[in-house]
Amino acid sequence: MKLDSAGLQVLSHEECMRLLPSSPIGRIVFTDRALPAVQPVNFCLDGDDIVIRTAAGSKLAAATRRAVVAFEVDDFHPVERTGWSVTVVGLARVADEPAEIARLEGLPLTPWVRGRDQFIVITTVEATGRRLGSFGSGRWD
Amino acid sequence: MKLDSAGLQVLSHEECMRLLPSSPIGRIVFTDRALPAVQPVNFCLDGDDIVIRTAAGSKLAAATRRAVVAFEVDDFHPVERTGWSVTVVGLARVADEPAEIARLEGLPLTPWVRGRDQFIVITTVEATGRRLGSFGSGRWD
Repeated sequence: MKLDSAGLQVLSHEECMRLLPSSPIGRIVFTDRALPAVQPVNFCLDGDDIVIRTAAGSKLAAATRRAVVAFEVDDFHPVERTGWSVTVVGLARVADEPAEIARLEGLPLTPWVRGRDQFIVITTVEATGRRLGSFGSGRWD
Repeated sequence: MKLDSAGLQVLSHEECMRLLPSSPIGRIVFTDRALPAVQPVNFCLDGDDIVIRTAAGSKLAAATRRAVVAFEVDDFHPVERTGWSVTVVGLARVADEPAEIARLEGLPLTPWVRGRDQFIVITTVEATGRRLGSFGSGRWD
């Protein structure tokens, strides 16, 4: 088991991709007018790609059109101080081919918010993750 | 009550600052070698400032030294599809005055991970937030 300098377990790519869909909500991290921006969204995986829906014309749609973005998912338990996080860095694009849109509409991805009729696909370039405190290496202080 | 174009309730600055400390974990969003980066951290509020701890010499410490960052906290309930998120945009700096460090050490902020001996203070410039689905305006499809 590999630990980082803080003593956190370093997750493999495979573990990251296995953990990602265990939470329905992730956070897309992008740049909006040169400032860091972040927005929680529900998502699903399509192979190693992350698929989200957004409103055409939204800030998120404009900012993620052919942009490098990060996408973060985590699950922490405050009492036990255990948990994990996974971050994907990838290339975001709007799905605009009718055949691809038809296929994406078959995914189990129902928007939680109205008007999110556009699919954003994030092609995973790198997935990194850490696990905290549930692997018997002692307490965190 | 103000709604945005997606029908989400727009939270006031005061509501954002009241909700922020109700979760022990937030996500700091920064730029690392020109790429978007995000890291979950436990935190506490000091007035309207956000205080986190990190290891001196860490990627996070280097990237947040006098940088504009975002800090996101959320709480969602997947079954009910309700929840909220708050994002602060602010200026991060390392606390390096002994008197300030001594004061920050008195905050209820115990690092979950060892070696996090440096305080980062994020001065809040703007806090924005949204609430989903728990204010009687109908269902989300």
